Amino acid sequence: MQTNPISIRRFEEQDWPQVWGVLEPVFRQGQTYSFPSEINASEAHKAWVEIPLCTYVAEMDGQVVGTYYIKPNQPGQGGHVCNCGYVVATTRRGRGIAAGMCRHSLAEARTQGFKAMQYNLVVSSNEDAVHLWKKMGFEVAGRLPKAFKHPQLGYVDALVMYQWLG
Amino acid sequence: MQTNPISIRRFEEQDWPQVWGVLEPVFRQGQTYSFPSEINASEAHKAWVEIPLCTYVAEMDGQVVGTYYIKPNQPGQGGHVCNCGYVVATTRRGRGIAAGMCRHSLAEARTQGFKAMQYNLVVSSNEDAVHLWKKMGFEVAGRLPKAFKHPQLGYVDALVMYQWLG
Repeated sequence: MQTNPISIRRFEEQDWPQVWGVLEPVFRQGQTYSFPSEINASEAHKAWVEIPLCTYVAEMDGQVVGTYYIKPNQPGQGGHVCNCGYVVATTRRGRGIAAGMCRHSLAEARTQGFKAMQYNLVVSSNEDAVHLWKKMGFEVAGRLPKAFKHPQLGYVDALVMYQWLG
Repeated sequence: MQTNPISIRRFEEQDWPQVWGVLEPVFRQGQTYSFPSEINASEAHKAWVEIPLCTYVAEMDGQVVGTYYIKPNQPGQGGHVCNCGYVVATTRRGRGIAAGMCRHSLAEARTQGFKAMQYNLVVSSNEDAVHLWKKMGFEVAGRLPKAFKHPQLGYVDALVMYQWLG
């Protein structure tokens, strides 16, 4: 499989139409993220761009092929733990884009002073993701029985994954 | 120890000064909740009353002695799992108020159609709470190493606690 180099940079507002083009099919499928599957562009912009501390885009051949955000997972005394969400364009899977974004996010998190990274709801049926996050250093810190209602599989377990960055 | 009966009802806006009086010392201490310890009344009102689905007060002898909220822990496909937060007045500990609110919240959660209840960040050093939640049917679903920065103890583990309501 061909693996073109990806470049990752901060999101700029003019990227939004391309970013939404990446997010929308994934949110509509509703198999991996707990966003309402009927979410609209402005709600998605709020969740992906406005609420997070920073948002990034991954580009390949000048096209946005992935995006991720970083934000504190909790305010106050939990604010040293960050949370990230990553989405790869459905047409660009299997090219190392998620791994590249994860690696980038771990570096960014350290730069920004976070001490740990936590994923709150990794859908257990999303086996590729679970495998990748483990490879990237995350531990399964917890398992939430039937915490995700998968549109095809029904209630499936979700994992809490965690990595100390010390 | 005297245990007066508590009554629990929906929060009304006129309760806010008393509710803030219960919340403020607990948030300022910063030992159990990951709210910024310098949080002001209006930020607390947003977090405790506006964002949640419902807020409740526990009264004893006509005084607000505790308060809790209930909200979906996630949107979309995680929306069948609710989250609650409980605070008991620092002067009224050890009288079964937290247990009473927890029991009430489990019934309310079922009434409102939630399928599970999750606590995202139970501070491990808050041993009374951990013990109580276990007694109320919660399992430790996960342990987050050093996820809470305790003002006196430094980084301590936090627990994810979970109960299926099926």
